Amino acid sequence: MSNVQALVFDVFGTLVDWYSPITRLAERIGAERAVPIDGGRLARAWRSRYRPAMDTVRSGARPWCNFDELHRGTLAEVLAEMNLALAEPDRDRLVAEWHRLDPWPDTVPGLATLGTRFITGTMSNGHVRMLVDLARHGGMRFDVIFSAELAGTYKPDPSVYLTAARLLELPPEQVMLVACHESDLAGAAAAGLRTAYVSRPAEWGPGGAGSRSAPAAVDVAAADLIDLAGRLPA
Amino acid sequence: MSNVQALVFDVFGTLVDWYSPITRLAERIGAERAVPIDGGRLARAWRSRYRPAMDTVRSGARPWCNFDELHRGTLAEVLAEMNLALAEPDRDRLVAEWHRLDPWPDTVPGLATLGTRFITGTMSNGHVRMLVDLARHGGMRFDVIFSAELAGTYKPDPSVYLTAARLLELPPEQVMLVACHESDLAGAAAAGLRTAYVSRPAEWGPGGAGSRSAPAAVDVAAADLIDLAGRLPA
Repeated sequence: MSNVQALVFDVFGTLVDWYSPITRLAERIGAERAVPIDGGRLARAWRSRYRPAMDTVRSGARPWCNFDELHRGTLAEVLAEMNLALAEPDRDRLVAEWHRLDPWPDTVPGLATLGTRFITGTMSNGHVRMLVDLARHGGMRFDVIFSAELAGTYKPDPSVYLTAARLLELPPEQVMLVACHESDLAGAAAAGLRTAYVSRPAEWGPGGAGSRSAPAAVDVAAADLIDLAGRLPA
Repeated sequence: MSNVQALVFDVFGTLVDWYSPITRLAERIGAERAVPIDGGRLARAWRSRYRPAMDTVRSGARPWCNFDELHRGTLAEVLAEMNLALAEPDRDRLVAEWHRLDPWPDTVPGLATLGTRFITGTMSNGHVRMLVDLARHGGMRFDVIFSAELAGTYKPDPSVYLTAARLLELPPEQVMLVACHESDLAGAAAAGLRTAYVSRPAEWGPGGAGSRSAPAAVDVAAADLIDLAGRLPA
């Protein structure tokens, strides 16, 4: 690990909390419209459809489309499933909320500390504009924004990780992915990157399926970004 | 101009001073090797070859190659012209120095002020890694790194500017290029961007050809980035 020059970070779940803001906004919209909405159920159901939606792009069945487009389609499915009729402006608010998610408490200080020793970048399936909005909203500072959008397909396709390594002019083993999701870490490892796991037990809300323990194959496992800073070579 | 959402900045000359560091390093190498080197002449001659070298890429005569590769080739030409025999390690130091240029005094505070109101990004012919290195070296904070490398050709090709607007999901007229070079500003305007000129009289060194007055067609002209912040809508 002593050759690692750059850390690239998964964003949704790893750096920012999607569950709480989406839950809150869905319940606020329910209150405004006098329609009871189980915000937590909506948030989880929506996020659960993220992977199958991306898979249609990764398989080539569907041309590139970004998270706003995917989110709009999967939200319609979730609303139908929950028998909720929401007007277009409310759907727009929910889709836009993914640009304004809050960082976990350790995220901003952790990025700042790690940024003194490593090049830092995003490594997200979110599109560039979404990542810029999230970084500005949450005060997260990165040296560079890397997105699946630059590769035209989604993680864990190796080309997404390798596009970042190529643009950094680093061999893959000098780039480390930081993520809380096993499939992402496995994808990065398969592409030759180093991997750092951080646990995010609250990702899926109270009692939810948030990640609590490290996959076996990672190079380093940490409780959060501050802990990670202490575990990486100085 | 009231719709501008993002400012993208030319880097070499506009944000950082290439003349002084290249001059200093060339003269230091000369002193070390006991070979008199006119550092200022070398710096100017080297930078003068930048445009013709890029043109070979822009015309399609040569496949994409980045600034390190272009600089290595043009340095060999300059050294031959000046009858200087420098060994490979010294050439490496000179080429690498373009990753460690210092910002002008107004650059870091100007970017910080402008960044509170606008999305900020680089818009440089330098490659992504070079821009990351320059930003880290100089403490320049951007929301996003845009480079000609992402378009696979060089400014003023419209695709370079339009790639940034597309990734920001903004119409070109909501993106403003900030630059001190007329051809860059004209290229951005031709692509539909807004344009802001800043003067950089010291770019080519004392008594050099640094830009002192605004081209006629720009949307706003400013003395430096601090002045620019005062001239853009709040």
